[in-house]
Amino acid sequence: MLINGVIMRVYLDNAATTAVRAEVIDAMLPYMGVKFGNASSLHAPGRDAREALEAARASLAKRLGADPREVIFTSGGTEGNNMALKGIASEHPKGGHIITSKIEHSSILNPLKWLEGRGYEVTYLDVDGFGIVDPKKVDEAVRKDTILITIGHGNNEIGTLQDVEAISKVANEHTVPFHTDACQSFTKTSLDAGRMNLDMVTVNAHKINGPKGIGALVVRKGAKIAPLLHGGEQERRLRPGTENVGSAVGFAKAAELVTPKEVEHMRVLRDMLIKGVLDGVEGVRLNGHPGKRLANNANFTFAGIEGEALLLRLDMKGVYCSSGSACSSQSLEPSHVILALGSRVEESHGSLRATVGWENTAEEVDYAVGVIKAEVGSLRRISPMGR
Amino acid sequence: MLINGVIMRVYLDNAATTAVRAEVIDAMLPYMGVKFGNASSLHAPGRDAREALEAARASLAKRLGADPREVIFTSGGTEGNNMALKGIASEHPKGGHIITSKIEHSSILNPLKWLEGRGYEVTYLDVDGFGIVDPKKVDEAVRKDTILITIGHGNNEIGTLQDVEAISKVANEHTVPFHTDACQSFTKTSLDAGRMNLDMVTVNAHKINGPKGIGALVVRKGAKIAPLLHGGEQERRLRPGTENVGSAVGFAKAAELVTPKEVEHMRVLRDMLIKGVLDGVEGVRLNGHPGKRLANNANFTFAGIEGEALLLRLDMKGVYCSSGSACSSQSLEPSHVILALGSRVEESHGSLRATVGWENTAEEVDYAVGVIKAEVGSLRRISPMGR
Repeated sequence: MLINGVIMRVYLDNAATTAVRAEVIDAMLPYMGVKFGNASSLHAPGRDAREALEAARASLAKRLGADPREVIFTSGGTEGNNMALKGIASEHPKGGHIITSKIEHSSILNPLKWLEGRGYEVTYLDVDGFGIVDPKKVDEAVRKDTILITIGHGNNEIGTLQDVEAISKVANEHTVPFHTDACQSFTKTSLDAGRMNLDMVTVNAHKINGPKGIGALVVRKGAKIAPLLHGGEQERRLRPGTENVGSAVGFAKAAELVTPKEVEHMRVLRDMLIKGVLDGVEGVRLNGHPGKRLANNANFTFAGIEGEALLLRLDMKGVYCSSGSACSSQSLEPSHVILALGSRVEESHGSLRATVGWENTAEEVDYAVGVIKAEVGSLRRISPMGR
Repeated sequence: MLINGVIMRVYLDNAATTAVRAEVIDAMLPYMGVKFGNASSLHAPGRDAREALEAARASLAKRLGADPREVIFTSGGTEGNNMALKGIASEHPKGGHIITSKIEHSSILNPLKWLEGRGYEVTYLDVDGFGIVDPKKVDEAVRKDTILITIGHGNNEIGTLQDVEAISKVANEHTVPFHTDACQSFTKTSLDAGRMNLDMVTVNAHKINGPKGIGALVVRKGAKIAPLLHGGEQERRLRPGTENVGSAVGFAKAAELVTPKEVEHMRVLRDMLIKGVLDGVEGVRLNGHPGKRLANNANFTFAGIEGEALLLRLDMKGVYCSSGSACSSQSLEPSHVILALGSRVEESHGSLRATVGWENTAEEVDYAVGVIKAEVGSLRRISPMGR
């Protein structure tokens, strides 16, 4: 039976969150039930939990090009970013200068705004029309009192990938610590803290089919930060609180399951989606860089279309996308990321983010492209903005 | 077959962490797999997740005597306590005075120490020999510049329950906000933020057979705090980050499952344990108040015994207890809680915490008492401290 003409349900919001894989849940379950010790307890169940926690840490460290001692578990990306930024600032209580870009996630921009209220100065670098941060501009922005450079790896809205290796090189030349928010890029593109010389890296699990509520901050040797939370002595005294062993095990398992083949599968579907929409719809623009972009991300602006109206139409047809970031879905402000690309404000109401995952199929993408074409056409016929 | 004479495995460290109940895992699973939307996404899976999150919030609010809008999900007790203390302090950037007790958890004492380094003044109230904070002493300690009173409800080591209603009355008379860390007491004794007039209450899930990595801070109308983390607009702009829907659902379910009958079961086992040890071992003292104590907590000092040595002996016999708090198990410092009761430092090395749960049986407690008696005797025979 067809309801509202829905013949398929297609989840294309993997940049917001992903379903936890069956294998991940299987890996987590023993540490929720039987092996339930507190990893900081000294008895046998506690030691079992500790062992599992350290194995998860070692696995993630390997994947991140870091030493296990450099991986600090957090409650997720927001905490990791807050911890990195405020943690560096706390080491410079008299103030200092921080360099970032205009297209960062709210969990970077809002801690920086908070730090500005406490006497720190922030330079927000412009990006080009594709959302790229020029490493030369980073170099020019460095001052004597610069205490941190933080530039995200893969943008959560438009998918643009930054050349973090080149930017970290600049940071290194000035002996300024470099932090990157890699929540969107982790496992989807090359990311090696050691080889790329990244001092701090934020990652989380729920973007890679792991559980919500867990992430990690890589803090490499030499990067000195103060803890954000105070309490017990867990996580090398950098992050107190009973260790979330099951979720840490699930996080590591989720990362282990992502193969190059799977990333290639996402890339193929992403390109099908982009080609289908660009070829099939008039007055559409792909936001972000055509090549240097996350394997799973497509982001479009449809001239004369309200993003939210399109989103709800697609939802009724079983196609689940996003308009801007889920983290600011309550806000009616135009996306700061699309605005930074140099778009007119009206256009920024029209962006649609469609992000594929390992579970998506070519058939689903075909269906989604058809629905997008039909609904954009239908909305334009009734739109007061006309065409 | 007996290994090391182990005939039973008895987990008596429920104050550190508990196993997640099967019903809780069943409640969580749909929100990890199928219903995996981001609760802040606008599409159907997002709305399903939002609905589940709000139902969990409403259930917990009812149990806590609060309005659902007053319940803010956190990553656990440590974050909740940090958020309450630093959140109030942030509202008083010029400094102020805070009242607490000497027996608080490290996630209270260490944030306060951190605030002292930033110009705030803290009064650490003495407790009596049972670990009780006298509400009159709280009253006497209030100053014109007092910005917060924070006294934990049930002590995590010795189990003593404070009269938080009387203390909150004092706070209210002085129009000073009152916060209580109720991680140990939640569901185990009467706790009603509305009736008891508690402005802020910290609770978490993994002490009540819920998942690790989730908790809540009740922030009642009138209590004004600044957020600790900055980012998206989740949790009424007080706690950013993708909502951990599955764990929130599990937290609510765990609380719903705790019945008065189950608490009574814990109390009966606790009393069996206390009576068994006090009657069967010489030179033993029960730490904490004999009557005003957590339903699940027993804490003993054995004269002339190293707590850690006893712990490891019990571990070899399959009895899993704790020496002091799991959160400071890495530390060789004597417990600050036992010291505050007026014990000599040597004695504070000798404390053993045994905390029962709903799964424990009378048979298990009998076995544990027998093992404790035998191992204390054996250790005393070889102890250099002698007896």
